[in-house]
Amino acid sequence: MHTIHEKKNLVNRVRRIQGQLSGIEKLLEAGRDEDYAVILQTVASSRGALNGLMSELIEGHLREHVLVSPDGSLADRERALESILGVLKTYLK
Amino acid sequence: MHTIHEKKNLVNRVRRIQGQLSGIEKLLEAGRDEDYAVILQTVASSRGALNGLMSELIEGHLREHVLVSPDGSLADRERALESILGVLKTYLK
Amino acid sequence: MHTIHEKKNLVNRVRRIQGQLSGIEKLLEAGRDEDYAVILQTVASSRGALNGLMSELIEGHLREHVLVSPDGSLADRERALESILGVLKTYLK
Amino acid sequence: MHTIHEKKNLVNRVRRIQGQLSGIEKLLEAGRDEDYAVILQTVASSRGALNGLMSELIEGHLREHVLVSPDGSLADRERALESILGVLKTYLK
Repeated sequence: MHTIHEKKNLVNRVRRIQGQLSGIEKLLEAGRDEDYAVILQTVASSRGALNGLMSELIEGHLREHVLVSPDGSLADRERALESILGVLKTYLK
Repeated sequence: MHTIHEKKNLVNRVRRIQGQLSGIEKLLEAGRDEDYAVILQTVASSRGALNGLMSELIEGHLREHVLVSPDGSLADRERALESILGVLKTYLK
Repeated sequence: MHTIHEKKNLVNRVRRIQGQLSGIEKLLEAGRDEDYAVILQTVASSRGALNGLMSELIEGHLREHVLVSPDGSLADRERALESILGVLKTYLK
Repeated sequence: MHTIHEKKNLVNRVRRIQGQLSGIEKLLEAGRDEDYAVILQTVASSRGALNGLMSELIEGHLREHVLVSPDGSLADRERALESILGVLKTYLK
């Protein structure tokens, strides 16, 4: 899995998206028309942040489990590739 | 803005995505290799949920503010269209 | 539908994407490993061009058929909105 | 690079997208309002086809050049991974 530093960075990315979603929730609750454009912009930017999170997760996995692997075996690396191809294809749709 | 029922539905959508993100955060903190595919799948599905939220927000806005508007004026409907075109173009990228 | 100028601009966008696809086809036929990254970059950029085309089509439709319409009737504008909501939701996925 | 069979399959995918684009071009040239929804649907489906093409290209590259490579060297596989990470990140955006 990821190093402590990488893990912290990934968790911080998730927390930022959670912060954006809390902001969206508050504006929806307030229900003011003038907040509409800000709500849409925040949804768009939280999707961008999710894409960034996915991109970092996939890159880390390809580097640490497909290119090389803890026990160095081809079988281990092959399993690691199979485990993300399904999600990658869904995500590329 | 949206009716009470629509607002509740939108807020529930946001809360479901927040629940998914909390799940991702826990799995990242645990840092187990075997959780990797589940993390990727959850990120992919939370992005799908965000797209669904955006789609509902845009549809509601087009129906209630661009097609018709509270004061019925073309100028009001024009402003409403302008306010989402920018976000729509970013989102379609 | 669109003015002559807009139509020309939309057709040119389509032709540029067709040019990109012909380039991809040639590189695939040649089958050289070193062309791989260029093929991927061209596919990525033709998808961006398609998104640009979709964005312009939707904006034109919202302005010319949903905001206002040739015969000015609400029913006509309502039909125009319904005709793109389905595609917009598919595209936002 | 890909086997003859894979190459043929990839080229056919490209040709199908070219066919869709030619159809879009003709409808735009005809400029009839009633064709509008079909144009949008065809743009949406050609984007889906492009995503399918990208997905197949990336999967083939990961299997044949990152997981293993013709000369089997780690350095060769590393270069192959680097060459697609840039495009993959752009595409995931």
